[in-house]
Amino acid sequence: MFDAIFKNLHAVTLADAHGLGIIKNAAIGVQNGAIAFIGTENDLPGSSVYIFDQKGAWVTPALIDCHTHLIYAGTRVHEHQRRLSGESYESMAASGGGILSTVSATRAASEDELEQNALARIKSLFQDGVAAFEIKSGYGLDKKSEEKMLRVATKLQEGLGLKIQRTFLGAHAIPPEFSGRGDDYIDHLCAEILPHLHALGLIDAVDAFCEKMAFSTTQVEKLFKTAQHLKLPVKIHAEQRSLIGASKMAARFKPLSCDHVEYCDEETVQAMAECGTVATLLPCAYYTLREKIKPPVDLFKKHGVPMAVATDHNPGTSPVLSLRLAMNMACVLFGLSAEESLRGATINAARALGWQKTLGSLEAGKDAQLAFWNVNDPLEIIYTLGGKLCSGLYVSGNYHDFTA
Amino acid sequence: MFDAIFKNLHAVTLADAHGLGIIKNAAIGVQNGAIAFIGTENDLPGSSVYIFDQKGAWVTPALIDCHTHLIYAGTRVHEHQRRLSGESYESMAASGGGILSTVSATRAASEDELEQNALARIKSLFQDGVAAFEIKSGYGLDKKSEEKMLRVATKLQEGLGLKIQRTFLGAHAIPPEFSGRGDDYIDHLCAEILPHLHALGLIDAVDAFCEKMAFSTTQVEKLFKTAQHLKLPVKIHAEQRSLIGASKMAARFKPLSCDHVEYCDEETVQAMAECGTVATLLPCAYYTLREKIKPPVDLFKKHGVPMAVATDHNPGTSPVLSLRLAMNMACVLFGLSAEESLRGATINAARALGWQKTLGSLEAGKDAQLAFWNVNDPLEIIYTLGGKLCSGLYVSGNYHDFTA
Repeated sequence: MFDAIFKNLHAVTLADAHGLGIIKNAAIGVQNGAIAFIGTENDLPGSSVYIFDQKGAWVTPALIDCHTHLIYAGTRVHEHQRRLSGESYESMAASGGGILSTVSATRAASEDELEQNALARIKSLFQDGVAAFEIKSGYGLDKKSEEKMLRVATKLQEGLGLKIQRTFLGAHAIPPEFSGRGDDYIDHLCAEILPHLHALGLIDAVDAFCEKMAFSTTQVEKLFKTAQHLKLPVKIHAEQRSLIGASKMAARFKPLSCDHVEYCDEETVQAMAECGTVATLLPCAYYTLREKIKPPVDLFKKHGVPMAVATDHNPGTSPVLSLRLAMNMACVLFGLSAEESLRGATINAARALGWQKTLGSLEAGKDAQLAFWNVNDPLEIIYTLGGKLCSGLYVSGNYHDFTA
Repeated sequence: MFDAIFKNLHAVTLADAHGLGIIKNAAIGVQNGAIAFIGTENDLPGSSVYIFDQKGAWVTPALIDCHTHLIYAGTRVHEHQRRLSGESYESMAASGGGILSTVSATRAASEDELEQNALARIKSLFQDGVAAFEIKSGYGLDKKSEEKMLRVATKLQEGLGLKIQRTFLGAHAIPPEFSGRGDDYIDHLCAEILPHLHALGLIDAVDAFCEKMAFSTTQVEKLFKTAQHLKLPVKIHAEQRSLIGASKMAARFKPLSCDHVEYCDEETVQAMAECGTVATLLPCAYYTLREKIKPPVDLFKKHGVPMAVATDHNPGTSPVLSLRLAMNMACVLFGLSAEESLRGATINAARALGWQKTLGSLEAGKDAQLAFWNVNDPLEIIYTLGGKLCSGLYVSGNYHDFTA
């Protein structure tokens, strides 16, 4: 009846609209890669299948990192000191640092080099409990280099049995060859690059950095119309540094998520609620950039906008390789409860990727993507900073043991 | 001539008064557990000894965590939510939470249980590059339980080949049986517990929590006089929550370090400079407690007080298992440069423990305690949040490979 059974554990199912959905003395039966049984061990139907004894560990849905830039070459470590000395993100970008410095390193790197770099990063996150990722392009910014990045994302997906959403972020910055010609670059993305890469089957979603220092709402709207025409879902980097109406514009396209969103006002939050999108909070970028304006968590709760939490891993503003740390910072810096933070990196992260029917909670019928934790209390997963708490991951039918 | 040689690496020696002291294409020769050669590979004398090829990795002195409370039982995870809801440290302590809740769990735990818990924590820190620790007692607060904690610290030292400074922190909080009788408890420490445990050879240094919510300067002064009489060095938890003259009082005893020190004014910093102590910064406690007052880093630099950086690992206010994260927070939250932060967790941490003659930098004659890092730039050690960057540690003649 089952392909595998996990028992002698306690489960955080997150199966209900609120709360952790705890089942003490639980068991999980897996069949054809899906959860076929989740309940108390006493209710588990008899079976002679191989059983994983979890020795009293806690199990949660495997974590989901729903906003990352994991594929790139080069380092931006030296911007750190410039930032500590008070230089702004905008100023570094204007002097050829920032995103464009990663673009030149990434354009120069081979596909193989990019894959090996990204694999090392994914391994760190994986061993910390993450089994599903969103990965953006956006450090190529020309047809060849964007294609290279998305091919790497595709290979990573196939090789690891992890779930990866490949997001086209051609509208991340204006590349040097279009300097001062943002409109022309957007036209080029819409007419050439996006349709080409979509035809190759490399794109699952379309994103844009909508900000004074990047692309205007008018420019992003044009890109989103092209995405809509190609039947690709959209998402947006919005309201990170200022309130320019990015989320409200995006709401007309029913985006999967609006990300960063520190500067949202109540009208914006209402628009987000009405279109059913997710607010993806990225506290490690807020921390690294030493920002002062926090996202309006109370407004998201008041209007029922689900909040996701992600690493925003990137070499410049969020060099983080632990989703648990992002979850901790969402609590300490933004005021989420530990429970809200855990929902943010599981069920709400699944929602931010359009995957809520198959991932993000422990429920019969969902994919069996399980994270096991060597903790006495499940909230230690969020409370503890660093450390090796994840004892194993069960992903795509394989059990990865991290206790060795 | 050598017992072991490490080559094909780049070294951050921290051997000079300022700067990183980088040697590119370096080699290290070890003899009888000490560094016998450090220089460029070209200058390495010929030898037929076994060679560790480091494949271009970076090497630094193994990190030193100079302020921890790693031995305890129980969890304080549920105080996290109370704190996020706005409850103060003082209020939780007054209602039986805080330090005293860990005291009752620790009193109830067996020596073996305490050792296993601490070992798991040390393993996380060790795999993140730390090979020397300070560990405090202070969750026993009676003769039997303080002895139990210090025995565990002694066992950890012997078993692992790590260097551990065992610090007596009987003056951490007033135990329930002395409630309202702080003076009596200090008398009891001075007359009974401290001399007894010292006679057993379990104490390397004496610490006290000098704060309105804990012990007064007068009380701590009495304890320090006893320590001085026993020829034990002292250190102090000072100026964490208010300025009550703790560091100035301690300065008369030439303390190894004054720790936390957020509320220091310039007069206090001058007193610290004059007595030659170290300011130990604990940014993860500042972060977890959501403090607003930062330590006066510019004053420490102006007056030449060396700054150390430590985890302050403890179950309540700093549940952190990565010294690298503390180093990152020292930069982002307190404004240290990456270089100052690295010195803080190596040479200045050694100084805070009185170990600067044998540890903390890569120099001929010092103990061969080496950390190897899989990074392109040594400052990535501090810049990167989380992740598995430490590829190995060489400690007490054994090479521990973390790449597997």
